[in-house]
Amino acid sequence: MVAQKAKVTIFDVAKASGVSSSAVSYALNGKPGVSDATREKVLQEARKLGWRPNGAAQSLAQSRTRRIGLVLGYDPQLLSVEPYIMRLISGLGSALEERDYSLLIRMSMDDDDDVSILEDWIATGNVDALLLLNLEIGDPRIDLMKANPQMPCLAIADASLTGGLPTLTSDDAGASGTMIRFLASLGHRNIARVAGPEELGHSYIRDAAFSEITTELGIRYRCLHADYTPESGADATKRLLSVTPRPTAIIYDNDVMALAGESVASMKNVSVPDELSIISWDDSFMNVAAHPAITALGRNVLESGRLAAQLMLKLIDGEEVEDVQEPPYELVERDSTGPPPRSKFAAHSQR
Amino acid sequence: MVAQKAKVTIFDVAKASGVSSSAVSYALNGKPGVSDATREKVLQEARKLGWRPNGAAQSLAQSRTRRIGLVLGYDPQLLSVEPYIMRLISGLGSALEERDYSLLIRMSMDDDDDVSILEDWIATGNVDALLLLNLEIGDPRIDLMKANPQMPCLAIADASLTGGLPTLTSDDAGASGTMIRFLASLGHRNIARVAGPEELGHSYIRDAAFSEITTELGIRYRCLHADYTPESGADATKRLLSVTPRPTAIIYDNDVMALAGESVASMKNVSVPDELSIISWDDSFMNVAAHPAITALGRNVLESGRLAAQLMLKLIDGEEVEDVQEPPYELVERDSTGPPPRSKFAAHSQR
Repeated sequence: MVAQKAKVTIFDVAKASGVSSSAVSYALNGKPGVSDATREKVLQEARKLGWRPNGAAQSLAQSRTRRIGLVLGYDPQLLSVEPYIMRLISGLGSALEERDYSLLIRMSMDDDDDVSILEDWIATGNVDALLLLNLEIGDPRIDLMKANPQMPCLAIADASLTGGLPTLTSDDAGASGTMIRFLASLGHRNIARVAGPEELGHSYIRDAAFSEITTELGIRYRCLHADYTPESGADATKRLLSVTPRPTAIIYDNDVMALAGESVASMKNVSVPDELSIISWDDSFMNVAAHPAITALGRNVLESGRLAAQLMLKLIDGEEVEDVQEPPYELVERDSTGPPPRSKFAAHSQR
Repeated sequence: MVAQKAKVTIFDVAKASGVSSSAVSYALNGKPGVSDATREKVLQEARKLGWRPNGAAQSLAQSRTRRIGLVLGYDPQLLSVEPYIMRLISGLGSALEERDYSLLIRMSMDDDDDVSILEDWIATGNVDALLLLNLEIGDPRIDLMKANPQMPCLAIADASLTGGLPTLTSDDAGASGTMIRFLASLGHRNIARVAGPEELGHSYIRDAAFSEITTELGIRYRCLHADYTPESGADATKRLLSVTPRPTAIIYDNDVMALAGESVASMKNVSVPDELSIISWDDSFMNVAAHPAITALGRNVLESGRLAAQLMLKLIDGEEVEDVQEPPYELVERDSTGPPPRSKFAAHSQR
């Protein structure tokens, strides 16, 4: 494990072929300037010696790195708590692989770090394009990328947050309506929500949509902001269950908090779905494995990842990219939702 | 988003400084051959113009890419079902960041692909070191890496599987003993296990240890192999619960299957832990969020990732690396384990 073993170079190939190194270079790169016989001979010797193009030299020559950059915020709790990021990476990776691209990941320790990693990539050209996730309102990364249009960049976020950058966007406002109307159709008139962190862009979009639609439908709505962890989801659930009149349905902004909420209900002998309906925003194996299995608003995150990769490859190729919608949310009805409790319980909860 | 904007090159700096490009190169690279005054002037102009070293050119010059390669098997279900990989990536990323290294990820579509991506990295020098995960028995990647000692490589696996490559290893046999002895101390004499895929190296190690230790302690033991998904964990649990005499405790090789198993018990009105104890091998938020919360054998995966990164950086620096143990497993006792059911139930289960 000391110095790297010398690679086979074009000089080795030149020596073996009995021609000059520039002739080898022409031959290997498919350029004119050598006879067909020489080209054939060179390719033969190159194969025999096991010559392979040098990655860095090739990058320089093509000014392509064949890498897409992704900065992940270093919050082990948040990163590992949800299957979302890993699914997105799976989708990205599989689509990039079709073009021999790879994903270059760096971990940012704080917001400043986030920006400085992007600055470094822009300055050094270490990646061909960038993907931005988890945008906050007024995110400094947007200005940075707008000031550097030479670096292709795609954001996964609501288009209202991305200042005109190419965006893969999801219809969170529409999805909020889907869930509220589903619960309303079951008869619920008193709905609560355990949301993600208030400063995240998509929390903001969802908050606005929930207020608006519940007001429009005349439904009582309250919201507590948590941080996606099971502990915060459990705490919020305990508080919501102690309110009078108790909400008859709770929507959780992720699957982990929904599972934690269902456990709190079980501990407090609040029967799901007879006394409380539960919906998870984002579907995963956790909702399937829970008992009762949790109704969820799912979407194909893998497909989002693939789509994001394809859009970035288009940007790299110099094509125009319009804002694109993520695969739509779909409500998967399971056992955790039903009509609200009847008057007997309602009277009980309002005593 | 068309062609890349021309970067500031040393020629631009040369023009602005009124010196030759080789003088600029000497000055910027801190080499002798220019006067102090010229060096000062060049640095000043370079700063003014915003010159940054070109990533690929710098890589060529240093023969370092500052990248660590990781190939992930493309199985969206497996990749997203467990928090393990994402935690490992968090740990790797945070330790690599301290040395300005990044993680280069490619997705392999099948086993052959796995090997050919590694071959490509070895041939092109596109990464400084490689990390191998999820080794199978007789894994072809081991031979490939042994044939290419110039590429630093670390495996996370049981050392018996890695043919002498530097290895970060976990004491799975010891951990198997910890769980069996814990259950034996509670009084269990009939234990089952829902394991991961039989072909995985660490399943094999665990299988051997479980057989040996249960035989030694005179404990009845049976094992069903599943694939880490909730569906497979639920199926195996249903089968185990229909066996007579029914096992009084089930150990699951991951958290997702443990959660699914607990749900099956709840559906079948088998009370946890009064009639059935449940342990998860690998701890996560899911075990905390479940009801009852699930006893688990945990370890600090984040720290494993950090350790793996540090070992790879040592290998890159040409240092010797002995096999290293991962952070130890620790049993976190929660509410899903207790003494086995008393004779009344035992009689019932044997009717």
